[in-house]
Amino acid sequence: MSGRSALLTGATGFIGRHLARELVDSGWQVTALVRDPASPRLPAGVVAQPSDVDHETLVATVEVAEPEVCVHLATHFVSEHRPADVAALLEANVAFGARLADALVNAGPVPLVNTGTVWQHVGGADYEPLSLYAASKQALADVLRFYSVRRGLPVVTLTLPDTYGPDDDRVKLVPALLAAGRAGQPLDMSDGLAVLDLVHVDDVVRAFLLIIDLLRADRGVASHDGTTRWALSSGHPMTIREVVARFSAATGLLVDARWGVRPRKAVEMLHPWPAGAFPPGWTPGVDLDNGLAGVAAG
Amino acid sequence: MSGRSALLTGATGFIGRHLARELVDSGWQVTALVRDPASPRLPAGVVAQPSDVDHETLVATVEVAEPEVCVHLATHFVSEHRPADVAALLEANVAFGARLADALVNAGPVPLVNTGTVWQHVGGADYEPLSLYAASKQALADVLRFYSVRRGLPVVTLTLPDTYGPDDDRVKLVPALLAAGRAGQPLDMSDGLAVLDLVHVDDVVRAFLLIIDLLRADRGVASHDGTTRWALSSGHPMTIREVVARFSAATGLLVDARWGVRPRKAVEMLHPWPAGAFPPGWTPGVDLDNGLAGVAAG
Repeated sequence: MSGRSALLTGATGFIGRHLARELVDSGWQVTALVRDPASPRLPAGVVAQPSDVDHETLVATVEVAEPEVCVHLATHFVSEHRPADVAALLEANVAFGARLADALVNAGPVPLVNTGTVWQHVGGADYEPLSLYAASKQALADVLRFYSVRRGLPVVTLTLPDTYGPDDDRVKLVPALLAAGRAGQPLDMSDGLAVLDLVHVDDVVRAFLLIIDLLRADRGVASHDGTTRWALSSGHPMTIREVVARFSAATGLLVDARWGVRPRKAVEMLHPWPAGAFPPGWTPGVDLDNGLAGVAAG
Repeated sequence: MSGRSALLTGATGFIGRHLARELVDSGWQVTALVRDPASPRLPAGVVAQPSDVDHETLVATVEVAEPEVCVHLATHFVSEHRPADVAALLEANVAFGARLADALVNAGPVPLVNTGTVWQHVGGADYEPLSLYAASKQALADVLRFYSVRRGLPVVTLTLPDTYGPDDDRVKLVPALLAAGRAGQPLDMSDGLAVLDLVHVDDVVRAFLLIIDLLRADRGVASHDGTTRWALSSGHPMTIREVVARFSAATGLLVDARWGVRPRKAVEMLHPWPAGAFPPGWTPGVDLDNGLAGVAAG
């Protein structure tokens, strides 16, 4: 088990922290490319390297890490962008990913597991963006296609729906329910009719590990045209209202949801859509009620 | 005819200079977003504004110009990129275009005529990139689709093949033939079997003017999903060897082409492919022999 080295971006984020911990616990040497290598959010055992560096330094960092695989989770998420967000979205979600791909080609090539969002695929389309965030993810996917077709970089994209789990400090529904339920305070909500497809972070981490194993066994699982894409889904999308009811039932934390107080976001799903096939061998494993109970117990 | 205002990027480039001159001569007020507003390459009569500014300033510039239409020709071209080119390619070809689109939505929306390259469409595919340059063009197309679908920005993309004409200071075949022919010096060439599809800049300018007219008459020519794309072609792609022979015959300038001295570029066409339908009403008008003779007479 020793000697395996993985390069990870986004290791200070929700999914990145969980994946980094799992990789470290499994004996991987994990090098994390992060904006702030001194971040207290970095899991123990991870080797942190700065990501906000010139390209030569990035290339050298990747070479030194000698990774077998790279998982690219770093992202700049904005649900509804303002003009001032555009430059940061494009830099973090497109330009950095392109530089990373270039460095991975130079160092191997080192197979890349990229992360997509269900919001690139409104209505289940091959590409139909719900937000500039989603469009920036697609822009990177098309850049990666060049690196796959013309530079031989194995690329697999894992498309994620909504995610939840312990240790979630994002501005998301489940952490908000937990905070409101524990504080016994009311929670201002939209009409609650938007749909969420909640996959537990343990299932997400399992999917990444499975894809890493597939790539280690045979890089050919990444098609030569860079379009290999798998997606996760709970199989049971539900309205925000139903999630709130399930949360209270599973955790015993009653939430006084004030429906209709806030406007609905422009970028929410109003009906679920498929984003692609599951990774081979993956099915959702964590039951929502158990998952929510675990969040409250954490 | 007075009062028409156009916003132009890339006005110091080969096509941009020709288009800007034609617009100014036709009575348009042309505002050019350029890196260097003092550039001697800017045609007379153009109002130059700096493009390398923060987003608020860009938004204000677009608002003040009150353009009826924007033609986006600015590009960072690299045929075969090196690692150090990646950041500049992504910034110039993706991030700047995204900020421009955001500003155009804010100011109207102002219809956008974007420029694509035949190299995004290897084999005639909807998307198959030959180079990182081509991939960066596709990445912007992905971003523009968001602005079209979700923000109502009318977008038309004109896909260009190889271009030529007078006043061409690019590192391209025809200017090289002209220089070698006039100097009576030999020209080191590849095997000369790559294919060029040469469209004269006057035909390119006519296509942009035609699309501008279509958009002024009915913005609905730009489909709501941002995928309206027209392409130009000479209809007569030919090998570099044939271009050289035609050049000498048309201009009387004999070129001592030393075939096979240089390696073939990785990013050349070896057989022609279609990039899309012509703009409605457009066909190539400048005969290659006349066009080449005109270059030498200029």
